[in-house]
Amino acid sequence: MMNELLGYEKGGPYPPDEYVRVNAGRLKTFVSEVFVKLGVPKEDADIVADNLVAADLRGVESHGVSRLRRYVDGIKIGAVKTRPNIKIVREGPAHALVDGDHGLGQPVAHRAMRLAIEKAKENFIGVVGVRNSNHYGIAGYYARMALNEDLIGISLTNSRPLVAHTGAIGKHIGTNPIAVAVPSEREPHFLLDMATSIVTIGAMEVAGRKGLEIPEGWAIDEKGEYTRDPEVVIKSGALLPLGGLGELFRGYKGYGLGVAVDVLCGVLTQSAWGKAVKNTTERYSNVGHFFVVINPGGFISIEEFKRSMETLKRELKSAKKHPKLGRIWIHGEKAWLTERYRIKHGIPIYVKTQEILKEVAEDLDLEPPF
Amino acid sequence: MMNELLGYEKGGPYPPDEYVRVNAGRLKTFVSEVFVKLGVPKEDADIVADNLVAADLRGVESHGVSRLRRYVDGIKIGAVKTRPNIKIVREGPAHALVDGDHGLGQPVAHRAMRLAIEKAKENFIGVVGVRNSNHYGIAGYYARMALNEDLIGISLTNSRPLVAHTGAIGKHIGTNPIAVAVPSEREPHFLLDMATSIVTIGAMEVAGRKGLEIPEGWAIDEKGEYTRDPEVVIKSGALLPLGGLGELFRGYKGYGLGVAVDVLCGVLTQSAWGKAVKNTTERYSNVGHFFVVINPGGFISIEEFKRSMETLKRELKSAKKHPKLGRIWIHGEKAWLTERYRIKHGIPIYVKTQEILKEVAEDLDLEPPF
Repeated sequence: MMNELLGYEKGGPYPPDEYVRVNAGRLKTFVSEVFVKLGVPKEDADIVADNLVAADLRGVESHGVSRLRRYVDGIKIGAVKTRPNIKIVREGPAHALVDGDHGLGQPVAHRAMRLAIEKAKENFIGVVGVRNSNHYGIAGYYARMALNEDLIGISLTNSRPLVAHTGAIGKHIGTNPIAVAVPSEREPHFLLDMATSIVTIGAMEVAGRKGLEIPEGWAIDEKGEYTRDPEVVIKSGALLPLGGLGELFRGYKGYGLGVAVDVLCGVLTQSAWGKAVKNTTERYSNVGHFFVVINPGGFISIEEFKRSMETLKRELKSAKKHPKLGRIWIHGEKAWLTERYRIKHGIPIYVKTQEILKEVAEDLDLEPPF
Repeated sequence: MMNELLGYEKGGPYPPDEYVRVNAGRLKTFVSEVFVKLGVPKEDADIVADNLVAADLRGVESHGVSRLRRYVDGIKIGAVKTRPNIKIVREGPAHALVDGDHGLGQPVAHRAMRLAIEKAKENFIGVVGVRNSNHYGIAGYYARMALNEDLIGISLTNSRPLVAHTGAIGKHIGTNPIAVAVPSEREPHFLLDMATSIVTIGAMEVAGRKGLEIPEGWAIDEKGEYTRDPEVVIKSGALLPLGGLGELFRGYKGYGLGVAVDVLCGVLTQSAWGKAVKNTTERYSNVGHFFVVINPGGFISIEEFKRSMETLKRELKSAKKHPKLGRIWIHGEKAWLTERYRIKHGIPIYVKTQEILKEVAEDLDLEPPF
């Protein structure tokens, strides 16, 4: 249904004087080598590499290798353990609580999601909370793990405070994302992967690196006024919850979703929540995650479920189009098209990200991937 | 922490020439009598009455007794069964699928949520999907049922199509609400109860009855242009997803949440979804619900959990206030204050709703409650 978009990439343009195209496999190998060099077991290093490069492949530049430096720094400073003792603290037929022992968020979350998947395969539902973890990259990565097993995957995490909740100024709650992946007969599968704020702090970082202004309405300065300067948001302002400032467009819904994620990831696991969640480079960030896996086979036949999902996607795509807007998309479709394109043509790496990678390579006596 | 707001009511003002104050118990008795007269068992009629009056008590005028007529009509037309054969279709230690047999949404949902609660008490997680149900009133009602047992309650339902998804015009998906209730040491407990659209169709109905315009940005007409006329939205336009029109403020997030709710309530249960969900007065509406109950005791001690929730609420309330906005609220706080006030002083019933109730009373040879 989307042959006409085979060259589609999210977030462009990518002018060749600012971006170099790097092969995904080559980039993954490099990132893995970085973590192995820092003392992370190869298996865990591969998971981190796969997670970061998946973000770049799927067009989420803010959550990809551009963040490599802070993961490296987190380990160097001792805020992130390279060989954590990840353990199951509590467990039942359909749930568990995992302690990540301050390891890298990606391997901790990967293990927890695997556990949720196993439980859902056996008892149709798997719910796993995680405490004492770190930033885990894109939330959708773990939700997608369920798809290979024909399961519905839900992935939540809290994050360091970045959002001013309704009526407040300053950074109080995380961008606390919600990701939901649903299997269907054919790709692209439905994959919602959203911050509960309007945009992520990663979007501010990308805009800042590129010297761009942000649209009015996304964020506020330290006095609560709208700001278009991403550096102001990062330094002293705050992001706004989905729905925006105040109550008119229901900003308290984004605020409420953000708190609900914090309750499940932070309070329920007795990890940190709200302002107590720290950055990857602080000891310890105490990020919490929450995974839910639902086995459609516990309700109806998996074939029927997947067939119905095709119908649902087709119905949404074939709705009457708004005369002033672009095409109708299914969640995950843009990312899927971008991934297919980039697997073939390489990932565009921005000039400043190239510098970061070169620095990291030099520090660790490794070959940069370009 | 909120003594200064003891007289607070959501949604006012309530001028006495337009509103009559009715005692909540008296109103509940009347609503129950209506359903008993129509052939609904007393126990089920009491649940419907409790649900509708709870909406009015908590300031959700759009979902209260003003909707009595359409439930009555649904039964009269034969679109809603008064004595359905509600049964468990599939069941495991932590999940079940319930068939509502086209009964009133409230007693069907009440039974399903009870089942989810029982499962969560035994196995820490309870997930119950419901097919072939009807409009179930406010989503938060069922989420709140978990609070009495110190459990976290989540309640989702799909609804007839009312929302134009991103890039489309016309009504395609429901306002598909998400409700999350979390126990704490003291009331008000955290209770998020939100449509995944900016506002509900009920808000359009209330505005329409009162001859009011709606703010620009909430809804579109049949051509996709913003409209301020609630009657246009109801007749030929559509509501917009949380985040608004197009992509600038991330309307696709509200769209995605709405679809995720449809997947769990409609596709997974093989109830209707999207445009196939019908109104209470159509045979059959085939609404689906989805309930999740999480027992904090499966993760940490319940006392610790509830204490932490108090801390979280206090932290949010004590954040630095925005100089141009009102006080900082916790979700559910406004509704709780309104309920306390109205239990004492009665529920304000709008003049047109009084007429509806009088008509229903006359039709069924009952005494109206005022």
